[in-house]
Amino acid sequence: MSMNFLELEQVARDWTYEAGEKVKQSLENPIHIESKSNPNDLVTEVDKAIEQFFYEKITQHYPDHLFLGEEGIAEELTSLEGTVWIIDPIDGTMNFVHQKYNFAISVAVYHEGVGMIGIVYDVMSDEMFRAVRDSGAYLNDVELLPVLERPLEESIVGINARWLVEGRNPYQNPLRALVRDLRGTRSYGSAAIELAYVAADRLDGYICVKLSPWDYAAGAVLLEEVGCKISTFQGKRLSMLTPNTVIAGKPQLHKEMISGYVGEEL
Amino acid sequence: MSMNFLELEQVARDWTYEAGEKVKQSLENPIHIESKSNPNDLVTEVDKAIEQFFYEKITQHYPDHLFLGEEGIAEELTSLEGTVWIIDPIDGTMNFVHQKYNFAISVAVYHEGVGMIGIVYDVMSDEMFRAVRDSGAYLNDVELLPVLERPLEESIVGINARWLVEGRNPYQNPLRALVRDLRGTRSYGSAAIELAYVAADRLDGYICVKLSPWDYAAGAVLLEEVGCKISTFQGKRLSMLTPNTVIAGKPQLHKEMISGYVGEEL
Repeated sequence: MSMNFLELEQVARDWTYEAGEKVKQSLENPIHIESKSNPNDLVTEVDKAIEQFFYEKITQHYPDHLFLGEEGIAEELTSLEGTVWIIDPIDGTMNFVHQKYNFAISVAVYHEGVGMIGIVYDVMSDEMFRAVRDSGAYLNDVELLPVLERPLEESIVGINARWLVEGRNPYQNPLRALVRDLRGTRSYGSAAIELAYVAADRLDGYICVKLSPWDYAAGAVLLEEVGCKISTFQGKRLSMLTPNTVIAGKPQLHKEMISGYVGEEL
Repeated sequence: MSMNFLELEQVARDWTYEAGEKVKQSLENPIHIESKSNPNDLVTEVDKAIEQFFYEKITQHYPDHLFLGEEGIAEELTSLEGTVWIIDPIDGTMNFVHQKYNFAISVAVYHEGVGMIGIVYDVMSDEMFRAVRDSGAYLNDVELLPVLERPLEESIVGINARWLVEGRNPYQNPLRALVRDLRGTRSYGSAAIELAYVAADRLDGYICVKLSPWDYAAGAVLLEEVGCKISTFQGKRLSMLTPNTVIAGKPQLHKEMISGYVGEEL
C-alpha cells in the first residue's frame, strides 16, 4: 500500500497545532524543570507531555509506524526501515523556560530512510513551516521560493557563540575564522527554528557542532524542498539515529563553509 | 511650562505606528541599499525616509524640541539641554534588508539630559515596548514587572558572536570568558530589540562593544523603568552624544559582568 504523504502531513499538522495549544496553556502555570545530562540541558514536564501526546496519537492511528523522540518514550530505534516519526516536542527548551518564546515543535516523517514530511511550528509566533517531499515548502499559507545565493561575505549565518569559546570543541578556530569572514551571525536558541529560517531565507546558513536527529529531522526536509543543503561538517549525509555535526545553507555557501572552514576531518 | 510626558508618549507612539506602516508598505517594493562607513554598515532609502518623517512631525508640532537621529538629517547636537528626541528610524538595518524581519523603530525623548520616554517598536512582530519615566513600562498593553534575578551561570545574555573574534576588539578575552560562564547567549541583530527583551525578561542581559546613542537611548528608559541597569563596560553613565561600550542587565548580573569580566579600563 502506497502512502499519501500529503494527507499524512495534514494530519501531522493538525496534531501539531493541537500540541501547540497545549503548550500555550501550560505557560499559564509555573513550569517544573529538571536537568538532564548537564545543568544547562533542561527538560520540563511539558516536553514529556507533548511527546506522550504525539506517541499516543501515532500508535493509535498508525500502529505500524515507528517513533523516535527526544524524551525517549518509545523503544530505541536501530534502523530507519518503515515509516518513522521523528519528534522534538519542544525544541529550544531553554527559551521555553526563560523566555516563554522562540521555541518550536518539530515533527518529521521518514519513509525507508527518506525525509517525506517536515514540520517546524514556532508556537508563540504562530509560524508554521512545513514541507512534503517534492510538493513544496510553506510558511503558513505562503509557498517558500527556491533560495537566492549571496556571497559568503554578505551572508548571515545562525551560530551559537558558545562554539567559539568552549575548550572541548575542536572546531573553535575554523568557526572563529568563518564568523570573521561572514557579514553577520544570529542566534535564536532553537536549531529547528534556525533551520526553518534558512529555508525561509531569513538566514543564509546555520551551523552547530552537535545536534541530535530530532533537532534537524524536520528542518532537513524543509531545506531540501527549497534547494538548500544540509550535512555533517564533512559534507556527509546526516544520520537520523545518532548525533552529528550539522551545517546547512544555500548550496554554494554550504560548499564554501565546508571546503574553506569546517570540512577537515578532526 | 512643565511638559506632560504621558501625553507626549501617546503622540510619539502614534507617530511610531504610522512610521511602522510606512516601513511595512516599503517592503512590497525592492529595497535600495547603500553602504555607509564600511560595506556591512547598511543604510536604505527607508531609513532616511522614516527619519525625515519624524523630523518633520517634530519640527512642525514641537518647534522648540531638538533632534538627534542616526541618518543625520538634523544639525549635530553638542549638548542634551532642552527636550531632545533621539531616533533610530530602523534599528537592525541588516535584518531589514536580509530578513524583512526583526528590526525596530527606536524613539526616545530626553529632557535636560534625563530619559523621559522610551519606545522600541518591533514592526513585523507588532510588539510595542514603551515606557514613561516613573510611570511604568509596557509591552503592548501588558505592564512589564520589575525583573527577577538569576545567578550568572543560569543567565542568558544577548551578545553578537563577532565580538569574540574580531582582532581590533580589546574585550575579546573577557567576553569569551563571560560566554563560557553563562548558561547561554542569543543574538537577534538589533540592539534596540535586545535591550527591550532584557526589560521584558526574555534576556537577562545584553552586551555590545560599540553602539551609538540612537541604538540605546530608548532601551535605556525601558530598562531603568523595570529596575535594570545600563552603563558603559566600566559602569559609567552612557553618553547620549558619543558612541559607547554598552552593558545592560538585571542589577546583580550587570554588576557581576562588570566586576568579573569587562570592567577593567583597557
